This record gives sequence, C-alpha cells and structure tokens, in this order.
Amino acid sequence: MPIITLLTDFGNQDGYVAAMKGVILSRAPDVTLVDITHAIAPQAVLQAAYVLAQAAPFFPTGAIHVAVVDPGVGSARRPLAIQTSTATFVGPDNGLFTDVLDSGAVTACVHLDRPRFWRDDPSSTFHGRDIFAPVAAHLAQQVSINILGTPINDPVRLLLPKPQRQPDGTLTGAIIHVDHFGNLISNIPAAWLSVARWQVHIGPATIDGIQPSFAAAPVGALLAYRGSAGTLEVAVRNGSAAQALGAEVGQTLAAEPHSH
Amino acid sequence: MPIITLLTDFGNQDGYVAAMKGVILSRAPDVTLVDITHAIAPQAVLQAAYVLAQAAPFFPTGAIHVAVVDPGVGSARRPLAIQTSTATFVGPDNGLFTDVLDSGAVTACVHLDRPRFWRDDPSSTFHGRDIFAPVAAHLAQQVSINILGTPINDPVRLLLPKPQRQPDGTLTGAIIHVDHFGNLISNIPAAWLSVARWQVHIGPATIDGIQPSFAAAPVGALLAYRGSAGTLEVAVRNGSAAQALGAEVGQTLAAEPHSH
Amino acid sequence: MPIITLLTDFGNQDGYVAAMKGVILSRAPDVTLVDITHAIAPQAVLQAAYVLAQAAPFFPTGAIHVAVVDPGVGSARRPLAIQTSTATFVGPDNGLFTDVLDSGAVTACVHLDRPRFWRDDPSSTFHGRDIFAPVAAHLAQQVSINILGTPINDPVRLLLPKPQRQPDGTLTGAIIHVDHFGNLISNIPAAWLSVARWQVHIGPATIDGIQPSFAAAPVGALLAYRGSAGTLEVAVRNGSAAQALGAEVGQTLAAEPHSH
Repeated sequence: MPIITLLTDFGNQDGYVAAMKGVILSRAPDVTLVDITHAIAPQAVLQAAYVLAQAAPFFPTGAIHVAVVDPGVGSARRPLAIQTSTATFVGPDNGLFTDVLDSGAVTACVHLDRPRFWRDDPSSTFHGRDIFAPVAAHLAQQVSINILGTPINDPVRLLLPKPQRQPDGTLTGAIIHVDHFGNLISNIPAAWLSVARWQVHIGPATIDGIQPSFAAAPVGALLAYRGSAGTLEVAVRNGSAAQALGAEVGQTLAAEPHSH
Repeated sequence: MPIITLLTDFGNQDGYVAAMKGVILSRAPDVTLVDITHAIAPQAVLQAAYVLAQAAPFFPTGAIHVAVVDPGVGSARRPLAIQTSTATFVGPDNGLFTDVLDSGAVTACVHLDRPRFWRDDPSSTFHGRDIFAPVAAHLAQQVSINILGTPINDPVRLLLPKPQRQPDGTLTGAIIHVDHFGNLISNIPAAWLSVARWQVHIGPATIDGIQPSFAAAPVGALLAYRGSAGTLEVAVRNGSAAQALGAEVGQTLAAEPHSH
Repeated sequence: MPIITLLTDFGNQDGYVAAMKGVILSRAPDVTLVDITHAIAPQAVLQAAYVLAQAAPFFPTGAIHVAVVDPGVGSARRPLAIQTSTATFVGPDNGLFTDVLDSGAVTACVHLDRPRFWRDDPSSTFHGRDIFAPVAAHLAQQVSINILGTPINDPVRLLLPKPQRQPDGTLTGAIIHVDHFGNLISNIPAAWLSVARWQVHIGPATIDGIQPSFAAAPVGALLAYRGSAGTLEVAVRNGSAAQALGAEVGQTLAAEPHSH
C-alpha cells in the first residue's frame, strides 16, 4: 500500500484537493493518502520547498510526494518527477524540489512529457488534478519513472540563503520559516552551536544563552533553542516571536560566542 | 474498500467531523475516508452544492458522498439518500444535491425515515453524526438504499442561475463561486467560447481576450480564461480578482464577441 | 487495522503533523490515521481536553488517541500513556486526559520513560514526533502499554468547573466550549432539564424555553437547546451566540424553572 502525500497552496475550502484525491483513488485504490499541508501561501514556492523538505524525510521508503505550488501552470514550465533512493517527488519545475535536488540522492529526474499518462484533455490551470495526480497514481502502481517522462539534467533550483561562520566565530544566517506558533526558524545548524554560551542577535533583540526547552524561559520571554528541524530557532514562550519582533522570512540573525 | 467523502460547514477546530468518522469506522472499518472540505461558510447550502458538484465526479464509481450543511436539522426537513449510476449521496433535503438531481443519472432517491439504521437516541442538532454517518456506513456495507428509506420523488432543488446566449452573440452569466485564490468562477460554459476573440465585462472592468494560462498575463493583471471546472473564470495573476473587483458570488458578467 | 487519531495545536500550515504521520506509518504501515483537529489554540490544554473528550468516545474499541498540546515539552513534565477498557491515550502529563482519568475506566497509566521505544536522539521541543508518534505506532503493533513505561498513580488532572443544582431548583454552570459556529456549550447536563419549562440566563440575556431544534427559533434569535454533547447549549439561529453575547469559555449561566 504505497503512500502518496499532497502539499499545495489550494487551501481547504474548495474541491480542488478532493478532486486530486479522487483522481488518484480512481487509478490506485490502495494508496494511503496523507496531506502535508494545503495552507502554503498562494504561489509561495520557497515556503512550500521548506515545508516539504521538513516533512518528507519522515515518511517510509517508497513514499510519493506530490507538491503543487504552481504559478507557472499552463506556461512553458515543465511538469517533473524526481526519484531518490528513498522517495519520488512529482510537481512543477519551479524550484519546489531544490532540497531534494541538492541532497545528492537523486537517481532519476524526468520531464513529464507523455500525455498518455495524464487525464484526457488536461486543463491549462489545474495540472495537480490533470497531470500530477494521475502520474502519482501510475508511480504507486509501479510504473517506472523512466516510462513517464524524458530524463533531464537541468531542473530549476532556488538559490537558498546559506548560513556563514565568520572568522571571529560569529554565526550569521536568516529566518527561513515562520511557523504556526510564530516561532522563527533559522538556517543556522544546531550542530554549529557546540560551545557552551551564545548570544543571539535578531533585529533589536539580544537573547542570552541557548535554552534546553520552551519551559526554561519565563512566560512571554524571548528564547533561543535548538529546534526540531536541526537549526537554531527563536521563540517567545507561550507567545509569538514573529509578532514580538515583527520578524518575517528573510530577517537576518547572528549567534555570537559569549566572551566573558 | 468503499470510499466515503465528507463535506460540511463544521470547521476544523471542534470534534464534530472526527465524531462522524468514528461513527463510520465503528460500523464500516474498511472504508477509505476523504475530506472534501469542512470550510463551507456556516449554513451556505449553495456554496456546498457547488463544491460537492466540482469534487464528486472525480471519485471512483461506488463512492459515497456525505454532505452536511444543514440549517434545518431537527425540523421537518427530511434526511435523504440519492443513488446515481456512479455514486451515492447522503445528507439533508435542502437543495445540497441539486446538481445530482438535475444530472439525469438518479436511480433512487429515498427519505431516510428508518431509525433502526441510525445511532440510538439521535440528537436533534447533529444528524451528521447520528443519522448520516451510520447510514453511509450501512451503504458502504452494501445495505441497499431501498432498505434504508422510503422512495420520494420531490426532493428539494435550488434554483441555480442559468447562463444565457443573447441574440447578438453576447454570453451573460453570474459568478457562482469564489475560490481560495480569489478566482471568480462563472457559470458560462467554456464550450460556448469557441470563437477566437472575446471581451469579458465584469463590474467596472473589461478584459480583452481569453488567455491560455495565468502566466500569459502580467503579474497583477486581470485575465479571463477557460477554468478547470469547464467554465469561464476571471483571475488576477498571482493575486485575488475577488479583492481587485470587490466581486462576490452572484456578480453578473458578460462575454462579448470581439467586433473588430 | 488499528486506528490512531491525532489532536494537536500545531495548526495546518507547517510540516509538523505530517512528520508525526510519517513516523507512525514508518513503524505501523497498516494503521488508519484520523485527524481530530490541529486547530486547538496554542497551548490551550483545557480546550484540547474538551475536544478530545467529545470525539474519542465515538471511535471503535482499540483506537489509540495521540493528543499533543504541550507547553511543557522538554521540561520535567512526563510523557504519558493511559489505557481504558475501550481506548489508549498518548500525550503529555498536563491534564489533557482529565476526562479519561475521571471516567473510572482506566486500566493502566504509565510514564513513558523508556527511550528505546522513541526516535533516536529525540528533540526537546517536538515530543509529538519523537516520543508520542513512535509510542503510538508500538501500541498499534500490539506492544503492551506496560512494556512502554513505568506505572504511575498521580497523573495530572485539571480542576474542571462543575455544574450545580441550587436548593430552589435553579441550575448553574459555565460555558466550557465555544464551537466553530459560535454556539455556547455549557456543562449543565441535558438530563437535568427534565421539567417542562425553563428560563436560561446568560450575561444580560434571558432565553425562554428549551427549543427542540435550531429551526424552532426565528433567524437571528437566541435559543437554548439540548446539545449533541448532552448538555445545555445556547446559540443564535444561523448566527453566532458568542458574538451576539460577547461570551467566552468561563462565562457563567443559569437555568431557572419557570414559575408561572
């Protein structure tokens, strides 16, 4: 029973996601469908890439991940399938799969250019239903990725911001995701925080120390901690750091080794 | 493994939908449950009818669709089940199933008037849990629709607005759905747009031409296109046409064949 | 095919819930996953306890309910599993399971203190993914609760407000939940409302009579009724009583037997 996950910016109020599920179940009745999220902000490819990269690794080997945040639908942008040693990804060629492509685990990457594996008479505005869903169903039915499209070696990659270690030991990076709680997730690896004491600077705020848990800070206080995504995060205990700091994705931050 | 879909206005914050799923799984453990949406606006029967009609056709033959937007729950309004050649529908008799009833495919329509197929001691405010969920489970277990209720021939139909072809070739219609993106979905069939050039008039705006995709228009511009629902739609590329035009369901629009 | 339900305050926009599902499916591929809700207000343990108590009883015997509203994650608060005659509950020891603990049906209650049943190297901020999900998967795979942790007899209970019968026959209680529709759900048992006529007092409003259904009141009017949770509720027909009365959880109300 293969797993197919779905991630889109379609929201939860329309019939779009259900139409995709109906198309999949019509062709692959035994799959297990799992929603990652449908609340990606409209056209927010970067946000989608982040959320997908956070969730996909936890699924069993063989999972098929369909991601559709697709402002270029119906244009020349290519529909894509990418296979790695553990999973298959299906969606538009717009950078959504940058983390996958950069992982070094890709075993095949194809342009989905064979309409016989799609719904008949596909629309030009809803490839999720008309191309990606039926292709995912074929993959779940053990159709080889190389049957479904033509190999390419130039899929689109987003330029993701990279964290830096400065010569003086300071770590600099950026907020790459703001979660539902208003927690600020940076791209600075937690593994870089091996020394005992740090000061974190973000906007006007300075935060002393890396806390072991939310509860180590007083209610309402800012804290920095090693997040569950494996990077440095900033939160307000029982509150929203995004709101407290007016911070958004892209905001820079720095962690400075404590000098005294 | 039969499929049961659920569509309600219950929202996603309470235990109501889960209670329905628990009731179904207690009686039909092997079903595949699929949410269509639970974000129909409270009591918005017309919106529910539209979303259901858009999603249901994509499910495999034999699917059971439970739809509960039910302002008349506990009153004299009848609980209903409707069978077509491809699916079964369960919910209140308030017009939710107008598209199904008008499809010409109905093979049975019954008033669910037999409490032995319901939960014991049903509430008068939550028939989704106490009547519709157990009835859907019985249907999934191959209980015949004619066992579950008494045939009727006067189910409630909503008067849906109809698009018109004017004598001068102009097509007139109305916005019948505003989706998550703020795209405006009309009832004018895309099949009526066969001539090469059209001008679309909606509120104060005139839109030239029917575009093949969102990406054919500049970012922020209004565009008209053949939508994935098979009708004329109006959008703002990477934006919200509903917001840009202050448009809502019921707004009229016209498509005029281009004269020069 | 055991059922695992999930209830959290994680929202629906991030990859957190999907990560939990991936962890579960990696260890117990045959489970049926059901979301109760992920829209509990951040850190709102009392709201989570209420929603869980409303939904869990409708699931088949043997269901495993994972509930993660966990402001104390990573601190000294214990991870817990509780077994009753009909279900198993997994989550933090913070009062989330008060109704279960007070039900008299508990057959085992353990402190989950054995890391070999968790994900390796668990984070201190996401026990849902790293402790509760794998433990739920083990339970679904028939691992005994007593293998997974050490029995305790002092799990945390919340002090829930109790309804009262006054000497003059008046019933007093509190609003314990405000649902998606703005309906106000009290803790006054419907079974206490056996006499024919009541007046309900809530804030500045007095409501005459207990209605059999929403439709028995005019559109826009306040009404009191026996709710589907088995307690007295107050609603506005086709509207929001929470908004009309400015009422929140904790608001007191009284039902007075009618004297003339």
